[in-house]
Amino acid sequence: MTLQVYLSGEIHTDWRETVMAGCEGLDIQFSAPVTDHPASDDCGVAILGPEEKKFWHDRKGAGVNAIRTRHLLEQADVVVVRFGEKYKQWNAAFDAGYASALGKPLVILHPEEHGHALKEVDEAANAVAETPEQVAQILRYVLTGRLPG
Amino acid sequence: MTLQVYLSGEIHTDWRETVMAGCEGLDIQFSAPVTDHPASDDCGVAILGPEEKKFWHDRKGAGVNAIRTRHLLEQADVVVVRFGEKYKQWNAAFDAGYASALGKPLVILHPEEHGHALKEVDEAANAVAETPEQVAQILRYVLTGRLPG
Amino acid sequence: MTLQVYLSGEIHTDWRETVMAGCEGLDIQFSAPVTDHPASDDCGVAILGPEEKKFWHDRKGAGVNAIRTRHLLEQADVVVVRFGEKYKQWNAAFDAGYASALGKPLVILHPEEHGHALKEVDEAANAVAETPEQVAQILRYVLTGRLPG
Amino acid sequence: MTLQVYLSGEIHTDWRETVMAGCEGLDIQFSAPVTDHPASDDCGVAILGPEEKKFWHDRKGAGVNAIRTRHLLEQADVVVVRFGEKYKQWNAAFDAGYASALGKPLVILHPEEHGHALKEVDEAANAVAETPEQVAQILRYVLTGRLPG
Amino acid sequence: MTLQVYLSGEIHTDWRETVMAGCEGLDIQFSAPVTDHPASDDCGVAILGPEEKKFWHDRKGAGVNAIRTRHLLEQADVVVVRFGEKYKQWNAAFDAGYASALGKPLVILHPEEHGHALKEVDEAANAVAETPEQVAQILRYVLTGRLPG
Amino acid sequence: MTLQVYLSGEIHTDWRETVMAGCEGLDIQFSAPVTDHPASDDCGVAILGPEEKKFWHDRKGAGVNAIRTRHLLEQADVVVVRFGEKYKQWNAAFDAGYASALGKPLVILHPEEHGHALKEVDEAANAVAETPEQVAQILRYVLTGRLPG
Amino acid sequence: MTLQVYLSGEIHTDWRETVMAGCEGLDIQFSAPVTDHPASDDCGVAILGPEEKKFWHDRKGAGVNAIRTRHLLEQADVVVVRFGEKYKQWNAAFDAGYASALGKPLVILHPEEHGHALKEVDEAANAVAETPEQVAQILRYVLTGRLPG
Amino acid sequence: MTLQVYLSGEIHTDWRETVMAGCEGLDIQFSAPVTDHPASDDCGVAILGPEEKKFWHDRKGAGVNAIRTRHLLEQADVVVVRFGEKYKQWNAAFDAGYASALGKPLVILHPEEHGHALKEVDEAANAVAETPEQVAQILRYVLTGRLPG
Repeated sequence: MTLQVYLSGEIHTDWRETVMAGCEGLDIQFSAPVTDHPASDDCGVAILGPEEKKFWHDRKGAGVNAIRTRHLLEQADVVVVRFGEKYKQWNAAFDAGYASALGKPLVILHPEEHGHALKEVDEAANAVAETPEQVAQILRYVLTGRLPG
Repeated sequence: MTLQVYLSGEIHTDWRETVMAGCEGLDIQFSAPVTDHPASDDCGVAILGPEEKKFWHDRKGAGVNAIRTRHLLEQADVVVVRFGEKYKQWNAAFDAGYASALGKPLVILHPEEHGHALKEVDEAANAVAETPEQVAQILRYVLTGRLPG
Repeated sequence: MTLQVYLSGEIHTDWRETVMAGCEGLDIQFSAPVTDHPASDDCGVAILGPEEKKFWHDRKGAGVNAIRTRHLLEQADVVVVRFGEKYKQWNAAFDAGYASALGKPLVILHPEEHGHALKEVDEAANAVAETPEQVAQILRYVLTGRLPG
Repeated sequence: MTLQVYLSGEIHTDWRETVMAGCEGLDIQFSAPVTDHPASDDCGVAILGPEEKKFWHDRKGAGVNAIRTRHLLEQADVVVVRFGEKYKQWNAAFDAGYASALGKPLVILHPEEHGHALKEVDEAANAVAETPEQVAQILRYVLTGRLPG
Repeated sequence: MTLQVYLSGEIHTDWRETVMAGCEGLDIQFSAPVTDHPASDDCGVAILGPEEKKFWHDRKGAGVNAIRTRHLLEQADVVVVRFGEKYKQWNAAFDAGYASALGKPLVILHPEEHGHALKEVDEAANAVAETPEQVAQILRYVLTGRLPG
Repeated sequence: MTLQVYLSGEIHTDWRETVMAGCEGLDIQFSAPVTDHPASDDCGVAILGPEEKKFWHDRKGAGVNAIRTRHLLEQADVVVVRFGEKYKQWNAAFDAGYASALGKPLVILHPEEHGHALKEVDEAANAVAETPEQVAQILRYVLTGRLPG
Repeated sequence: MTLQVYLSGEIHTDWRETVMAGCEGLDIQFSAPVTDHPASDDCGVAILGPEEKKFWHDRKGAGVNAIRTRHLLEQADVVVVRFGEKYKQWNAAFDAGYASALGKPLVILHPEEHGHALKEVDEAANAVAETPEQVAQILRYVLTGRLPG
Repeated sequence: MTLQVYLSGEIHTDWRETVMAGCEGLDIQFSAPVTDHPASDDCGVAILGPEEKKFWHDRKGAGVNAIRTRHLLEQADVVVVRFGEKYKQWNAAFDAGYASALGKPLVILHPEEHGHALKEVDEAANAVAETPEQVAQILRYVLTGRLPG
């Protein structure tokens, strides 16, 4: 048994590394969006030419990024979505909704204080974690049946 | 030609009424989530019994609300998602992602300043409007071919 | 907004009538399996000829009943599954699994003491109720946004 | 030709080992739910924190287990579901219904005396066996065209 | 509860009329392929111009007929396929396979002596009848729960 | 039996009127894209504000028009696509491909001289007509079994 | 580019060997139903116990065989269906209908004289061949772009 | 992360080679239709026998080619469609529509002057490029997150 796990959401902390470290030795292929923030913002205009309006600048980049993110969401066996402390993070919630409609098992990761605002997202999830270590423990259990400790 | 239009998102202004008023005379069936905020928050415990933990209080309510919202999303021919000035509104972005994965035509409605934060959501949309009047004009054009003015 | 609600499961108490009575005035079309137990058991052989082996007697009947139950499951907007006090009720759990795989919103209705044995079924549900009155209240809320009391 | 076979249901006897032993030499990848009963019951709270109420204790565990079981059901080419002598085994029937709605070929394994209670489940199956040896013989025939004896 | 029932297969006897007569008073919409044999054979060339080769003469007609038959198969809630005494009737078996892959409940109607040749088709069916009267009784039971006699 | 027929493609001749006139008395609901060429070209900017670049002017309009055309394609039972004498008509071919992937019965209408260039499109079709009168005759036959003359 | 090709239909001549010989060197994985006629007829009762009635004898076998055939049909990239000179071959036509509903590219292989009786099946096909050598040539062209001779 | 990329459309320039050269070192499997124009035109009659009418000559070839092109479209993770300077190229637009309905990420490649005529096709795309070098840069970014320059 092998798993494709897509790690969506927050790109400003090292939570992905923590999840991956906690999964050492497991048969998991992790994937993620492009986490280089400036590249992600500018990929559209850098390749396809500049735009004067910010709106189309963003559109071009979002279109290119969606090639990657949609592909990875569709391929994933499990989707983990992280909501951090800051920012609107609407793309994280969008990914969660998209994954949910595809019937993908969802793990949502967020600090406790976001609980009420994320209640619809959490409800669609198989598990709601507060730390990336817990995400790793879930994945280890799913693959091996072994519990922590 | 008739349309089922689901109006998702913000529940603290009268944008839904403005859209509907602008669509008078058109063959459209509008639907929406429960917009009575306290009822929406408490429906789970009010019917199925109280919970001490806020997390499960929210979970029960979100589960019941999802019966309505998923049904309406699946039935809709067009999904309009409104992001207002305030709050996290992750459920709005979740609905947009869900609708997008189902292949529903999407109209996103938000103030200009949210453009960058919503770029992934906007990219998935057929149209991005700034006012509910524009949404009504889009629906009128889609149904009749007539433009405003 | 109208709902097709399929009432699956236990056929030895009047829980369906209680749900329907509690939904008076709502725009709901209820459906159910054939609840005449002897007819349900014998429909196959009564129409298509007798079988000596009980196994094929049952198979013929189950095939005919499945024409109705699969059709109603596929048409339903919401599926309610009732587990009563007695019997194995594997067909109820089968229906719950079938409905879940189709992405139908599920309401599970069972006495509290079945909770542990039904935990996988409950987990797939939008709501878990203990009384048919609660089911009616859920449906009323889903359709009208109004809470009991 | 290779097969992914998911062995669902009863976890208190060694029927899975018997099926696997009978399939030696065949190109089959077997999978199963977590069969360590205490780990399966407690995985949710062990990883995500304790719950006072048994209902939520169970819910957390069922959510985590469903990541594994849904994934394996979706990946499977053939689903075998075993109903043993004891317990309610509603999760087994739920899995059978889920697999059936996905269009997976089903083999049901149960003692003869459960025949009437399982008639709807059996009707959805390609084959109904009474022993794990028969399941192995079916899989051998499916892969090689060779019959026993 | 209403049913769309597609009556596929043999066009040289009045079995469709017998089924429909036996269903008087039920809420069923019956449909069928074009049963005017010469019209069915020649519709392609009659409308779109003649062909010298019989193969393309047939192809044109089959293409036009498939507009009707595919539409009715997709719309049907139940598909009944009749195999008569004579002819190859490969289109009937094709329809049965097509309906089966769509997950439609199937009723197969054929004389007993075709049993072995039709075993794969029968296996995919919910019910195998020998007379059109039995088909009507099945439909009556499915809709009303009432058995004959 | 009723049919939803979407008439896609060329908007500069009255072929739609000819098809509809030839179908008088039949139970068909015809639909079409917006055929007012300037409105179709400018709907995006007329409603959502002007664009300096022609590319985004076109994008906005195409997004709005796609709300209508995708909806009608998805709802259609039969899709007719007309290729006229002039212009590139890539949107007509796009619609044909889209409808084909959805499994919709397709009727292609074009002058004989376009045959070679349209061979891939024609191959995906149930029927290839040269005149709108033939399209009407096909629809009449599909609904009634009656041939012209 | 690799292809999974399922060779369905007639089991009394060596047409499968001829197709495979003609495809030497190509990256194709061929599959087929069990072609040992007695094993195929008796697999159900040989494994699951005898039946007095021929009908249930056949049913048991057909159920077991369907595990293999449905799996191979679903996995196939191309389905080839052979209709021979003799027998009813309804299972071949059933497979063709099943494959067609799944959207699989179909190649039909039959002697010219069956053309009229198979016109609905041929119409659903990408190609209609008269010899297994032609089938091999089609597969070689599809994989390499090279034509015979 | 690996990608299957289907390069559809124009076959008279070396744009495919340019894309592939620009993707050196990336984990991409490229595929394409048969680009040998005479073979593509004549494959049907070369294998399955000559036709007097050009229409059926074309039909036979298109049917055989569709085995390859549909397979590759369905397998692809990303579909690139090139519209060149010349010809009608309706098959390219058909492929784009087909891929769009399947939900495949689309990259459209065309000279600027085709922008207005391709606006519906462009609207369905994730990215619109003018040069094959840009297509390669998009694919490199999607796989590695690295931007050119």
